[in-house]
Amino acid sequence: MKKLAVVALGGNALLRGNQLGTIEEQEQNTKDTLENLVYLVKEGYDLIITHGNGPQVGNILMRNDAGEEMYKIAQMPLDVCVADSQGGIGYMLERILRNVLKENDIQKEVVTLVTPVLVDINDPAFKNPTKRVGKSYNKEQADILANTKGWIFKEEVKDTGSGWRRVVPSPKPKSVMNADVIDMLAKQGNIVIAVGGGGVPVYYDENHDLRPAEAVIDKDSASAVLGATIKADEFYILTDVPFVFINYKKENEQKLEKLTIKQAEEYMKQGMFGEGNMSPKIQSCINFVNNGGKMAVITEATKLKDKSFGTKLVND
Amino acid sequence: MKKLAVVALGGNALLRGNQLGTIEEQEQNTKDTLENLVYLVKEGYDLIITHGNGPQVGNILMRNDAGEEMYKIAQMPLDVCVADSQGGIGYMLERILRNVLKENDIQKEVVTLVTPVLVDINDPAFKNPTKRVGKSYNKEQADILANTKGWIFKEEVKDTGSGWRRVVPSPKPKSVMNADVIDMLAKQGNIVIAVGGGGVPVYYDENHDLRPAEAVIDKDSASAVLGATIKADEFYILTDVPFVFINYKKENEQKLEKLTIKQAEEYMKQGMFGEGNMSPKIQSCINFVNNGGKMAVITEATKLKDKSFGTKLVND
Repeated sequence: MKKLAVVALGGNALLRGNQLGTIEEQEQNTKDTLENLVYLVKEGYDLIITHGNGPQVGNILMRNDAGEEMYKIAQMPLDVCVADSQGGIGYMLERILRNVLKENDIQKEVVTLVTPVLVDINDPAFKNPTKRVGKSYNKEQADILANTKGWIFKEEVKDTGSGWRRVVPSPKPKSVMNADVIDMLAKQGNIVIAVGGGGVPVYYDENHDLRPAEAVIDKDSASAVLGATIKADEFYILTDVPFVFINYKKENEQKLEKLTIKQAEEYMKQGMFGEGNMSPKIQSCINFVNNGGKMAVITEATKLKDKSFGTKLVND
Repeated sequence: MKKLAVVALGGNALLRGNQLGTIEEQEQNTKDTLENLVYLVKEGYDLIITHGNGPQVGNILMRNDAGEEMYKIAQMPLDVCVADSQGGIGYMLERILRNVLKENDIQKEVVTLVTPVLVDINDPAFKNPTKRVGKSYNKEQADILANTKGWIFKEEVKDTGSGWRRVVPSPKPKSVMNADVIDMLAKQGNIVIAVGGGGVPVYYDENHDLRPAEAVIDKDSASAVLGATIKADEFYILTDVPFVFINYKKENEQKLEKLTIKQAEEYMKQGMFGEGNMSPKIQSCINFVNNGGKMAVITEATKLKDKSFGTKLVND
């Protein structure tokens, strides 16, 4: 049996913070990342690629705002914007991956799925929206949007002044829709691209009707749920550091190479990882391994060819 | 063996010309259409749904323009905009179809694929772009965009004045990527949503690298290619008339109920169908049946439950 891996690409694998976000930049970043990913294919893994969408859906939301402002085009809700980003990013990944595979003489099909992900509308996150999305407004604009669209805003104070940004909930993913189709396609040898941006958040209402949730889902968290559901062997989170560190950038900084779930949970309790960034990644890795995964790895894409790199979380 | 049908939803099945394009309108139109489509599922067909994206990708292009103008956000090229629309529309179709199936007590999964469609870069359409996309510019703006982005413009004269609109090629679809995956998923009993907007147009360059084509593909044409490739039994084009007519709205108007390929080709030669609208639909039906399909049907979604409705093209 071949090993099955779920690989989650971070936003910066596609679009970096200091870049303008042109299509040329995005295509080059994507190519660089996928050329590294090919090492896993060469080692014989069946592969599912998931990806973030932060900068892209941010741009889509800004364009929605501008389109309404300039041309009175009806804005699409957040769920449709996330789905748009799954289409655009997924297609770009698929097209470039097909070229990278060809350059490496690998005969494999690539299939991209639009992926809804189920959340629970009673998730406490819906009472406490924290995830900032879209553009920064002044108080007056924010008040109008709060009244007309029911958006919730939080103030953001920066060196450049203060602004009000829409906040949306980030509920926990309960299950990935079509996980069995994703699994089957991957095991047939196709490389599957799915769960883009953490999935389009949807929930079942009291009548068991499927409704859109105006929310965003953490992509590592949704990818870990997928990995556990389909009993993937390994789960990779590709980010912008080669290893996870504790006491990062302090005198007693320590690089972590191998980490048991017990150790990871202990460090989490002690708050040893960056709150907004590394901590949810570690939690996703813990969830994956606790639910039957063999190994979770956090590293940079460029380190995939070197098996000695990366922080590896295992059961013991 | 169950019968396999490819059903192409026209733009107006999702968003009508006289509407604003709000999400509420799109969802209601989609629900109305899908409730009719269920009749085919109840008759036991395996089903692949394809769809147009005209109004939606038009809005995405306008928003791209507005986002660059207002916020200096880099515009995405046409291929990415088409892929965005596949994500957004495909997700909306999938979510609402799941609800419609549930209401009808039908247990079926729905799977939505992002679909690139191969075109030939030597297609004569690339030398003669005809398809108008995006907003209307004045001459000065159009000249700047022609210089900076290489876009081609054509003047459009209307009652409201003249304007310059970008024109892009509409090349013939050569093949639908992942047609075998679409086929397999449908025959397993999943309802598959694919080939949105006629597919994201891509081509192989001289190095056999897969490149994006700044073009749009006719959705009926691409759907017919898919249908023929996977040897679907039937092909439905759902549009805004219950039957095809010759001499439409003239004294000698004639409703067509059954049409052989020979008759259809004869009428085509005589220019009996609307050039921009019905003629390419008939051609797609001819192509489907000529390549092995049993029957192609042009009708309204609301007529699907009544087998006596619709214009049926058959071999003889």
